[in-house]
Amino acid sequence: MNDSIEARLHALGLTLPVSEGESYYGAAYGTMKPFHITGSVLHLSGHVPVRNGRPLHPGRLGETVTVPQGIEAAEWTAMNALAGMKQALGDLERVVSVIKSLNFVACAPDFSDVHLVSTAMADRLVDVLGPARGLGARATIGVQSLAGSHCFESWIEVEIR
Amino acid sequence: MNDSIEARLHALGLTLPVSEGESYYGAAYGTMKPFHITGSVLHLSGHVPVRNGRPLHPGRLGETVTVPQGIEAAEWTAMNALAGMKQALGDLERVVSVIKSLNFVACAPDFSDVHLVSTAMADRLVDVLGPARGLGARATIGVQSLAGSHCFESWIEVEIR
Amino acid sequence: MNDSIEARLHALGLTLPVSEGESYYGAAYGTMKPFHITGSVLHLSGHVPVRNGRPLHPGRLGETVTVPQGIEAAEWTAMNALAGMKQALGDLERVVSVIKSLNFVACAPDFSDVHLVSTAMADRLVDVLGPARGLGARATIGVQSLAGSHCFESWIEVEIR
Repeated sequence: MNDSIEARLHALGLTLPVSEGESYYGAAYGTMKPFHITGSVLHLSGHVPVRNGRPLHPGRLGETVTVPQGIEAAEWTAMNALAGMKQALGDLERVVSVIKSLNFVACAPDFSDVHLVSTAMADRLVDVLGPARGLGARATIGVQSLAGSHCFESWIEVEIR
Repeated sequence: MNDSIEARLHALGLTLPVSEGESYYGAAYGTMKPFHITGSVLHLSGHVPVRNGRPLHPGRLGETVTVPQGIEAAEWTAMNALAGMKQALGDLERVVSVIKSLNFVACAPDFSDVHLVSTAMADRLVDVLGPARGLGARATIGVQSLAGSHCFESWIEVEIR
Repeated sequence: MNDSIEARLHALGLTLPVSEGESYYGAAYGTMKPFHITGSVLHLSGHVPVRNGRPLHPGRLGETVTVPQGIEAAEWTAMNALAGMKQALGDLERVVSVIKSLNFVACAPDFSDVHLVSTAMADRLVDVLGPARGLGARATIGVQSLAGSHCFESWIEVEIR
């Protein structure tokens, strides 16, 4: 069944961003590494909707960022996270299952649809990894602010083989 | 010692809400599953104070939700989380220990008693599971907003046998 | 190689705060334990910049707390977390690697430099544990408020032997 995830990406018309070697855009935010593997668990650092080196739709939901823009940012965050998994594992087929994601939506105090944004991230993971491997446990919170004025961030654990 | 947790629930006059099969109220908030088990760790999705299908005391602490209401919401969240553990494990006696909980309190910027709310959740877990199994590590943060205007959410990991 | 971390602390002129027995300053915030160990993973409860029993630079970044003050608070939080690891493990040499930290910065809505604060925490861990053991995956969020008006909190997982 090797490369079926790659085939699914191709069928979806999606191309993962490239995370070469140990590179990680998050390193621009300070002292951290992109991932840590212990036993059968891959812990990813927070992924954000950076695209071509810039935040996609920076700002806060319920203020300057619309829900469709937040959804687009969340979908792209999933792509970055998938690239991070590939960087960590070499081959996405080593993914057994997303364990869980903790999701942060930068938003106004009265914005209570944070789940609509994180669902877009989760849907993209399911699209690419399939429901058996892409569906994880989840929580989502609306936060004050994120580094670099990103509107979304996802913190993901993955069970691997 | 089988069913001593059930006996403790009975002695406390508490009845767990029922989570049948793979059902999970959180699914109303989008693409996720209620839990993931890997090795000896049960990861629960975020639990919230939903009761009979509605948020208990929605809103924000320090604004429209009082501390006693937040405490009641947190206690009920513990009941939902216990029901989620039972759903995942079949039998609560498989719980070795709560590992930790990350707790979110929707609140006003000047509300700094977030720990009073999450302690009510932790106390209820200790009441039901006993101190050896119910007491976990913990962190609590005051957040901008939660899905569905819930005032509290808890994200729990459990060591299991 | 026993006590090389202790030697590094000495060379840096740093003295860890003492966490005796099961004591944990976090217990003042309610029902919790300072840590939980399962398998090769040490889960610490949230650590905050408490020093001599008081919050160091309480308040919110972007309001009453400056970035240099936030950095000082984050560095001290790392010292408390290291003391917590020593309490849990007996000997810091049992640390294989920081797995990851989730960091919370209490801040104003328009404060987007949360990573500058958490990096100070991460830098201190690397200073003391060395890059191979001190560098973890990471995410940082700006939050509404923390217990006791602390300006920073870190929630850390450590791989141990």
